[in-house]
Amino acid sequence: MKELKIGIAGLGVVAQGLLDIVRNNGALIAERTGVSINVVRVASRSKRPGIDLMGAEFSESIDDLWKDSQVDVVVELMGGVDVAKNLINSALASGKRVVTANKAVIALHGNELLNEETKNRLKFEASVAGAIPIINLLQGSLVPNQIRQLVGIINGTCNYILTAMEQQSLSFESALQKAQELGFAEADPSFDIDGIDAAHKLTILLSLAFDVPFDFQKIFVEGIRSIAAKDIIYAGELGYRIKHVGILRNDGGRIEARVHPALIPKEQLLANVLFEQNAVSVIGDASGSMLFSGPGAGSLPTASAVFADLLDFGSDSQGSSKEKANPSTFELVAMDQVCVPHYLRINVLDKPGIMADVTKILSESEISIEAVIQKESEDESDNASIVILTDSVEEHVMQKAILTIGSLPEVSDGVVDIRLESMS
Amino acid sequence: MKELKIGIAGLGVVAQGLLDIVRNNGALIAERTGVSINVVRVASRSKRPGIDLMGAEFSESIDDLWKDSQVDVVVELMGGVDVAKNLINSALASGKRVVTANKAVIALHGNELLNEETKNRLKFEASVAGAIPIINLLQGSLVPNQIRQLVGIINGTCNYILTAMEQQSLSFESALQKAQELGFAEADPSFDIDGIDAAHKLTILLSLAFDVPFDFQKIFVEGIRSIAAKDIIYAGELGYRIKHVGILRNDGGRIEARVHPALIPKEQLLANVLFEQNAVSVIGDASGSMLFSGPGAGSLPTASAVFADLLDFGSDSQGSSKEKANPSTFELVAMDQVCVPHYLRINVLDKPGIMADVTKILSESEISIEAVIQKESEDESDNASIVILTDSVEEHVMQKAILTIGSLPEVSDGVVDIRLESMS
Repeated sequence: MKELKIGIAGLGVVAQGLLDIVRNNGALIAERTGVSINVVRVASRSKRPGIDLMGAEFSESIDDLWKDSQVDVVVELMGGVDVAKNLINSALASGKRVVTANKAVIALHGNELLNEETKNRLKFEASVAGAIPIINLLQGSLVPNQIRQLVGIINGTCNYILTAMEQQSLSFESALQKAQELGFAEADPSFDIDGIDAAHKLTILLSLAFDVPFDFQKIFVEGIRSIAAKDIIYAGELGYRIKHVGILRNDGGRIEARVHPALIPKEQLLANVLFEQNAVSVIGDASGSMLFSGPGAGSLPTASAVFADLLDFGSDSQGSSKEKANPSTFELVAMDQVCVPHYLRINVLDKPGIMADVTKILSESEISIEAVIQKESEDESDNASIVILTDSVEEHVMQKAILTIGSLPEVSDGVVDIRLESMS
Repeated sequence: MKELKIGIAGLGVVAQGLLDIVRNNGALIAERTGVSINVVRVASRSKRPGIDLMGAEFSESIDDLWKDSQVDVVVELMGGVDVAKNLINSALASGKRVVTANKAVIALHGNELLNEETKNRLKFEASVAGAIPIINLLQGSLVPNQIRQLVGIINGTCNYILTAMEQQSLSFESALQKAQELGFAEADPSFDIDGIDAAHKLTILLSLAFDVPFDFQKIFVEGIRSIAAKDIIYAGELGYRIKHVGILRNDGGRIEARVHPALIPKEQLLANVLFEQNAVSVIGDASGSMLFSGPGAGSLPTASAVFADLLDFGSDSQGSSKEKANPSTFELVAMDQVCVPHYLRINVLDKPGIMADVTKILSESEISIEAVIQKESEDESDNASIVILTDSVEEHVMQKAILTIGSLPEVSDGVVDIRLESMS
């Protein structure tokens, strides 16, 4: 039996989940794997009453974790960025192995933390998509493949809000409020609904899928604040569901990396991942189209991913012998080169000729139209909505046409623009 | 760079897919992982013209593979049972490592092939669900969990037929014929549509999920021959889709293992896995409900799984250091103890009182009714269908009631009985 002594930083829900798994399944797992996980120290600014630390020492200073010669693995579950990064750095420098669930630290400081010497001593499965072992899959079972496309529902808050808007006919604001009441959104939800959280995760997936550096700044990011209930209804009429997704596309070595709301065909499995669930769809050149779904957050699901990282360390006491990948030759595609179909909703004064004006602008930009719906206003006003689904068009062409359409005198409130993504 | 020299038995579609991956992605994978996979020998009864063996030696005798001192890993891709088993045995006895895609060999002879001495030298990821790395997941990322429930669409032929019956309003026979034309069903389809293939795979999943011996005989098996187009329609009206699934359920250490058609709630992701796609849903006590879907067969997807096994060997040249799991304390539940809801379709002569007779029999057996639909015959006959959805009921109680109902003079053609399964 191998014993792995761990020190945990933080005593929040994930740390408590990890203690629960050790308590409930630790003996069984040790029997199955020959690896026993023992919690020897827990550090947190304050010990909450009622949490059973299973005999572990308690410290109020997280530095006690890497200074403790007993500790084999430091498990960083504090969240935040700077303090967590410093802890991980200190732990690695003192020769410890580290497991973290912290996507922001890896997305923003991964290049510094993961170098030749440390890369086999730092694991972060729980940082992306909770219980879904997407990092393990990208580094293991999917390695025989060149990844063609990856589309992930990797923010449970956005997916909850969009699902509630559709299924319960709620406005964005009401759905957000409901998500907050149920604990699926923070009091300040901007990190999630503006797409930052998903972009952190996509930064990590991009780096692992294509062996490129972590570069959060290069990810195109849009959130879901501009999605209206009627967009969800119109998209539904056209056969699509709106999801907030992180997307990687590999076109012969040219990589797109973007986070935004997207119309997904309803018959595709990804469109049927509902509420707070996460999912990652991957197309490999050999494996074909795969989907992995599960809880993207939560105490026990996240702790389950942390525990899996610990077992990996436990079954591999010398550290992995993986050699260095050569520098990757992939290059990132600038957003204005991305070529996808678009859904446009144009709020217009319902005057004769406006449809002709709009379609003329698209035609002059050589943008083909796949479908059009015209919707009269539900109130007594003269407003109407023109909904257009285009063929694939390069982003810079589309945005120029949208500006031109938006400047028509009959158009009010600008143009709602949502891209379309299909697993293909 | 580590070199792994492999010898391939068989030159069918999977072997050709493996050669394709080595040819197309081999160099890239070697750069990424530091493991180079080289095919040094291929053995097959006859070399088909036009297949590029990439410089490998060719033998007509598969025994040349384990006799070749150059070969590190024998890859068994012949199919069949006895000859494949003997090859695997000989290769293991001569100290080689072995990868196989052969579910029948593992399900029927796994206990003999995998002993203390050999278990780290035999891998079989491709034997279940093609490209879906369910074996790797059960032995890795899911280990922190006690598995509560596993429901898998693990036979692409059945899923193709049932999907085509629904989406294209086909009879079972027409859908089967279509599957045969498209290459999704064999000329003799009985192995797939009678559930044997799925039961082989479930035997493997059962053993890995619960550390019990491989015991194909203990799996309850039903195929899809008795599913009529109208069952698919009526199930749809009740909110369900009929899928052929392999099921494991763990009720406090008592394990159910069964293969049969089942009504799955339409809103669950598993019900939306269509045509030849496979998927495995797993509920772990920590991870929560997960789903993994992808191609369950085919040249490149299956070869991708084989290649992943090879890379596992390549990155672990000493053989895994996994210790022996203790004998498991799980016990299998006899089928007549299984307790689930049932869908019944009863073909009756439409006479007054027949509904009362049927419901009285159920009531006397203390079987509660969730829903009833009565359907008149579409022809001019006096026949009608009574469709009943019951509450959960023990199998032996249900089967006794079905016999009693079937013996009513107004009932013709027996009673169609399909169980209901929900990820819960």
